[in-house]
Formats: sequence, C-alpha cells, structure tokens
Amino acid sequence: MMAGYYAAVDWGTSSFRLWIIGEDGAVLAERRSAEGMTTAAKTGFHAVLDHHLSAVSAPAHLPIIICGMAGARQGWKEAGYIETPAALSAIAGQAIPVPDVDRDIRILPGLAQRDRQHPDVMRGEETQLLGAAGMLGGGRHLVCMPGTHSKWVRLVDETVEGFSTFMTGELFDVVSRHTILSHAVADADTFPAGSLAFAEAVRSARDNPALATNLLFSVRAGQLLHGTGAADARARLSGTLIGLEIAGALAAATPADSICLVASGGLGTIYRAALESLGLMVRLVDADDAVRAGLSAAARAIWPL
Amino acid sequence: MMAGYYAAVDWGTSSFRLWIIGEDGAVLAERRSAEGMTTAAKTGFHAVLDHHLSAVSAPAHLPIIICGMAGARQGWKEAGYIETPAALSAIAGQAIPVPDVDRDIRILPGLAQRDRQHPDVMRGEETQLLGAAGMLGGGRHLVCMPGTHSKWVRLVDETVEGFSTFMTGELFDVVSRHTILSHAVADADTFPAGSLAFAEAVRSARDNPALATNLLFSVRAGQLLHGTGAADARARLSGTLIGLEIAGALAAATPADSICLVASGGLGTIYRAALESLGLMVRLVDADDAVRAGLSAAARAIWPL
Repeated sequence: MMAGYYAAVDWGTSSFRLWIIGEDGAVLAERRSAEGMTTAAKTGFHAVLDHHLSAVSAPAHLPIIICGMAGARQGWKEAGYIETPAALSAIAGQAIPVPDVDRDIRILPGLAQRDRQHPDVMRGEETQLLGAAGMLGGGRHLVCMPGTHSKWVRLVDETVEGFSTFMTGELFDVVSRHTILSHAVADADTFPAGSLAFAEAVRSARDNPALATNLLFSVRAGQLLHGTGAADARARLSGTLIGLEIAGALAAATPADSICLVASGGLGTIYRAALESLGLMVRLVDADDAVRAGLSAAARAIWPL
Repeated sequence: MMAGYYAAVDWGTSSFRLWIIGEDGAVLAERRSAEGMTTAAKTGFHAVLDHHLSAVSAPAHLPIIICGMAGARQGWKEAGYIETPAALSAIAGQAIPVPDVDRDIRILPGLAQRDRQHPDVMRGEETQLLGAAGMLGGGRHLVCMPGTHSKWVRLVDETVEGFSTFMTGELFDVVSRHTILSHAVADADTFPAGSLAFAEAVRSARDNPALATNLLFSVRAGQLLHGTGAADARARLSGTLIGLEIAGALAAATPADSICLVASGGLGTIYRAALESLGLMVRLVDADDAVRAGLSAAARAIWPL
C-alpha cells in the first residue's frame, strides 16, 4: 500500500483524472480515463472512483478532493456555485461532502454569474483558476481557458470579477461532423497551427464577427470553386470560430495587463498561434499543472497538515 | 391523360416539388415529397421523377424544367454555374439537357461568386430570384432568402451583383439537436414569432455579433440559473443566429431601397418578425410562388408557345 496525503480528482464531462499526492506535494501516482460525468452517471461515480483508487493501491482512508462536473446537478452530489465577484480563496470552504461513503470525499463548487443579461456558469475551471492565480501573482489578468466551452475570465488579485463562455469547441465538433462542411474537412484530422489559412480565418472573423456564419459557408464554397484542400478547410473552420471568440472576449473585457492562456497540448498551441497572429501577448500556463495546483490548495485548506 | 405545357420541378437537398403547368400558366397538378437530392442520389433521379409524373398521369413527352440540387456535382447531371454579376435572364439559356432519357429534361444552372475572399454558391435560389425579380420590378433590392443556408442577394435591375450565404438554418438544427443546448430546448418544438425572448435575442446578436457563441451558451446558463423555459430557450437560440445573420448581411450590403423577403410558411413569419423588430421595412414574396414563376419564365424561354 502506498502512502499519500490526499487524492485530487478532476472530473469533467468526458474525462476523469486522479492524482495521489504526498505530504511534500509530490505526485505519487496518476490515473486518466474517459469515465467522465456522462459515463459515470450510468456506471456509478463511487464505482469509478473506487476502481481507480484500488488500481494505485490507495490507503483506505485517504481523503479525496474533487472538482468539475461531478458536482453538477446531474453529477454525483450537487456542489452549488459561488457567485461572482468570487474570491477564489472561498472555494475550499464551500466544498460539499459526499454523504454515505466510507471516506472523506469533498466536491468543490462551481462559479455562477447571475447577471440577467449575461448569465454564465463554470465547473472545474474555478479550480484551474485557483491554481493559475498562485502562479500569476496579483494584479489584473485576462485569462483564456479554451475548450468545449471556452471561458474568458477577468481576474483581479485572485478574485473573479466576471467571465464569459464561448461554445467554440462544441461548435467546431458539430459543424465539422454534422453539417455540409463535413465534406470539406473530412480528409484531414488536423492542421498545422502555423497554417496561413488558419491565421487568415482568425483575422477575418476577428475583424468581421458579424460574418462568422458566412465565413463558415465560404469554406464549403471555396472547396467547390477553388478546390480548397481538407487541411486548409479544417484550419479555416477552426480559425473562424476562434477568431469570433477572440473578438467577443476582447469586446467584453476591460483592458488587462496580459492574456494568460491556461491550456494543454494541441489546444494550447492553436490558441497561442491565434492570439499571437493578432499581435497579442500571451503567457501560457499548463492546464494540468493549474488544476492540480488548485486542487492541492483546496486540499491543504480543508485538511491542514 | 391530362393536358400540360411543361412540368416544373424544384429539387432541393431534402425536398422535391413538381407542378404540371398548362399553356395558360395554370397549375394543373402538384406533387411534394421528401425525395430530395440526398434520397434521389440513392434511389435514382429518373425513378423518382417518373414516379411522380405517373402519379399525375403526365403526357409521355411533356418537357421538364428543373432547378436546384439535381444540378449539383453529386446530383443528376451537373449544370454548372453562371458567374456574378449575373443577369437572371441568362439562366434559361444555360440549362443543361439530361442525356439518355426519353423526354426533354433541362436542369437550370446555379450562380457562383468566384471572389477569392468571398467565394459563394447557390442552386435553386437563382430561379426563385428570377421569379421574384418579375414581381419586384426594376431598381435596387436587397433580397433575403432564409433557409438551411440563408442567402442575401444584392439585386439591381434583374442582375445579381453579389450574394452572401449564412449557415443559420443548419446551425440551428445541429445546435438544437447535438449540443448542450439540446437540454434547454428539448421540451419545445416551436416558439411564438412575437416572443419577447426572440426579439431580445435578435437585437443582442445584431448589436453584439462578436458575442454570438457566448449568447448561445447563456441560453443554457439562463436555464440553469434563472429557470428559462424551453420555448424561450428555443426563441433565444433562433433569435441569436438570425440576429447574427442580419448583422452580417447588412454589413455586407450596399444601401437598398427595401428588403425583400422571399420565404414561405413559418420561416417567413419568423424572419419578418426579426426584421421588423429591428425597425426594418420588409416586402414579403412567397417562395413557392417565386420558384414557380422562375421555372415558368425559364420554360417559356426554352419552349416558346
């Protein structure tokens, strides 16, 4: 049996990640799977968690801190929301214990912006923000967290003033799979982040956001009339949606010292390329590091050594 | 056996309509079905057409004029494109005969805008435009043709100067069925065109097109935080996409004497409500009347009495 201080879990809609953390902060073990909320709501959250804890021989009474969609209404145990403006330091204190289990399991709350004109919610990103804020230090930051539902957050001295969600990733997915553009992009799984077609599409949509759905159709028309290849078509589709997001995010934001991009892997590379192609300065924070730092900050507040 | 001058067919991606027209222009018979290009490409265009001609006992040598996706590359016989600026009177002269059939069947060409920055195509709408132009008279018109792929056309004295396609209808379909918004709109099939939620969404997106995908997500957030009902959620989704389209169409257009809306049924009602809620004057032309008038104008040019 391995030692450990606590287990940290990032439980999203379609992914599950678990880390066993030692008293010195070291990662003792890691598990990743596709058993996100959608799967676990059918197979059972407790069963999924137990399976992964057993796989790393976690001690029987190791406490567990969880963020993400496990705390949604349709998740394991609803963890509610903290309202904006929200001090990130308040997240740990609002963690909800999971009842009727044989160990101490807490789920962190999400953030809600109840503004009638701009209602918005996040779950999981608040914990990434808690971690990122510790790395960024004080001051005013505009934080971009790309994904299925990209979040742009106005962060001032570890307080979330407000945020805006853009459906960029989910729209990319449904447009590329279920619309007439599926014919244009089918033969390419990816595109180079340095692609000229991508940079042009980002700029077109940023400059002319009202034409966004026209720019999407022109990807298909360009294929018919000019023989645009599949990788360029995919780059244009992605660039149009990301350029539209950036136009909206910058319009909704107050001036910031810098844009902090919290992302991992290919998505980080693409967003960095998009922002830099528009002349915007970007500071990259790895999203995995951020969420683990946020979960650790919460765990140490709840279970002090 | 019934008499007839010609048969007029509007053959779209997902719909088939046929009218038998007499020498005096009267509609002698009508057929409608869901055997659009997608279906007919599998079951055979000739078989679908013959079935409907037999059902109305059409004469064996009645000539057939067709517009729409039957002339696409993946249709029955590719009918090419006329390039913008395009005189609508040139359409009939570019009709392509279907080879190896036992009657005179002609498919009308589409329109193409080869502009590298704004490539665009239409098939079927050019025939509606030909019909609508006869009803509108000369002068400058901005023509809105809503649908799966909405077209906004700059028409001057029966010449198409240019046009822009917006993926509004197709995006409404995939967003309402395949994204997180499906939960918010599932319990309502329709919404009233006079809905306040619809008018508000149209105006928000027209005023802030860059926030379009954020406004979409706020439909879901509004349901979670404020209990927005399904009909209001559907109205907001539709209003956001239509408001975005109007913002883009008006940005791309030169000033016009009037907006002519070529539409039928519920779609005409919704677009009229959207445009009028923004204080825009609308002249409505029924899309069915327009396409039949366009097909008739082409038929009379090809087969003069």
